[in-house]
Amino acid sequence: MKEKILAADNLVLKRLFNLDSNTYEDGALNAATKEMLGLVASMVLRCDDCVKYHLEKCYDLGITKAQVFEVFAVANIVGGTIVIPHTRRAVEFWEALESQQ
Amino acid sequence: MKEKILAADNLVLKRLFNLDSNTYEDGALNAATKEMLGLVASMVLRCDDCVKYHLEKCYDLGITKAQVFEVFAVANIVGGTIVIPHTRRAVEFWEALESQQ
Amino acid sequence: MKEKILAADNLVLKRLFNLDSNTYEDGALNAATKEMLGLVASMVLRCDDCVKYHLEKCYDLGITKAQVFEVFAVANIVGGTIVIPHTRRAVEFWEALESQQ
Amino acid sequence: MKEKILAADNLVLKRLFNLDSNTYEDGALNAATKEMLGLVASMVLRCDDCVKYHLEKCYDLGITKAQVFEVFAVANIVGGTIVIPHTRRAVEFWEALESQQ
Amino acid sequence: MKEKILAADNLVLKRLFNLDSNTYEDGALNAATKEMLGLVASMVLRCDDCVKYHLEKCYDLGITKAQVFEVFAVANIVGGTIVIPHTRRAVEFWEALESQQ
Amino acid sequence: MKEKILAADNLVLKRLFNLDSNTYEDGALNAATKEMLGLVASMVLRCDDCVKYHLEKCYDLGITKAQVFEVFAVANIVGGTIVIPHTRRAVEFWEALESQQ
Repeated sequence: MKEKILAADNLVLKRLFNLDSNTYEDGALNAATKEMLGLVASMVLRCDDCVKYHLEKCYDLGITKAQVFEVFAVANIVGGTIVIPHTRRAVEFWEALESQQ
Repeated sequence: MKEKILAADNLVLKRLFNLDSNTYEDGALNAATKEMLGLVASMVLRCDDCVKYHLEKCYDLGITKAQVFEVFAVANIVGGTIVIPHTRRAVEFWEALESQQ
Repeated sequence: MKEKILAADNLVLKRLFNLDSNTYEDGALNAATKEMLGLVASMVLRCDDCVKYHLEKCYDLGITKAQVFEVFAVANIVGGTIVIPHTRRAVEFWEALESQQ
Repeated sequence: MKEKILAADNLVLKRLFNLDSNTYEDGALNAATKEMLGLVASMVLRCDDCVKYHLEKCYDLGITKAQVFEVFAVANIVGGTIVIPHTRRAVEFWEALESQQ
Repeated sequence: MKEKILAADNLVLKRLFNLDSNTYEDGALNAATKEMLGLVASMVLRCDDCVKYHLEKCYDLGITKAQVFEVFAVANIVGGTIVIPHTRRAVEFWEALESQQ
Repeated sequence: MKEKILAADNLVLKRLFNLDSNTYEDGALNAATKEMLGLVASMVLRCDDCVKYHLEKCYDLGITKAQVFEVFAVANIVGGTIVIPHTRRAVEFWEALESQQ
């Protein structure tokens, strides 16, 4: 997703994208927890592309369906029913991840 | 829209969706007024799916075109020109509702 | 609130403020309904000053306590628990309006 | 925070507040993880009162300073520098929690 | 974009749209600077249609690619990684503008 | 503002803060233009602390009162009347900057 942006050689954007990758690495919190943090933040800010990105990471890191739905629940309670359409698309994407095995 | 989400059997999401339905029932304010409240809130938060949902309810409850445009006006004044693209899509959806009779 | 801003003689801001006043006048919807629309929009966008402004108008136009709480309910359902602190301050302001009679 | 709101006996608000408490209980994810999810969501939505509420819960559930700063990092990367002032206030509140022991 | 909305003859919306045009005219700041202001505001508020609108104006007013990427950089730093998907689409639209000559 | 946050030695936050400073340096756009971009972004995202930060930079870089009010006009048109209270506080802060000479 970031390739075309990086091609333009803007230093601030390049460094921000590097930093973005660093943010979700294992640290005091493990990567799976951090991806769930990124997921819930993306949901309440209602960015479908960001939700998909973090959902895929969560899936790869072994987050279960019951766990990811609890992340959805926090997002819907904090962010309100305005988050429902994004939740529906997130569920569809999660099912696509499960079925592609 | 909510079926797949409900199928996952997350209690918080189930209850939130029930509560969502209760919110717009006749009470101290009538259902039509509440649907207009839901509509303007959805517009300033810029959720097209939510806007459509409330527009259809408004239409079914007898809100006139002149009235719904006054809701749009409040949304655009409070939320700014950032709401214009959502207003355009809302107008198109309203016209689709009118023409399907 | 707008005096100092108007003093600077910026034409766009002046016209926007005039337009803002026109928005809430009786029309296809009455002023009380429009003030409730402004209130719920202000709550989900979480602007305490705007909430107070519309609450005072609602109070002056005869909206009852039960009605204003139904506006709060829509705001909290659509906007989520993030709206709760603003609701608390709105309730305190409403009580101040009631007690100043 | 919610007492005055509850006193008004609005059923939707009452149920939403109950649901809010349920959301953060141990489940497929433990309570500490859920409070961190609530914290990061509150930070990117920039609600200081909500941030304090979840910070206190995180503190009580044994989240360490290094961990909470990683939550702050996710919030600032996802939500941008607009989150910095809220992070500063969050750090001050966290220090107050640590020093009150 | 605004024609169907204008057809409905809502005075507030008409005046807001006129005002919107006035806002970006040469004044104490020149039109190119104002379009960049409109662009960065649209990016942090994450409205793709608005971003395209201002990008086209920026392009027509002679803003260079290096300059527009610095606008993108400010948007991504202030608004966070949530702005990345909108930046990607903005880059694609900018390239389309360049190639259509 | 950032000292206490930096003291905690979180690498992502440290780098983000460095990057934040780099963003507003002279480049393809000059620093004054970039500070106005940061200002309008902060206004539509309604962060008073961020608004003050960029206002002070704008003032130091020689932006005139007429120019800064055109930035305010863009912010209010794009972001709506919800930006008015922040504009009022911005005007007060600008006057404080002018009077402290």
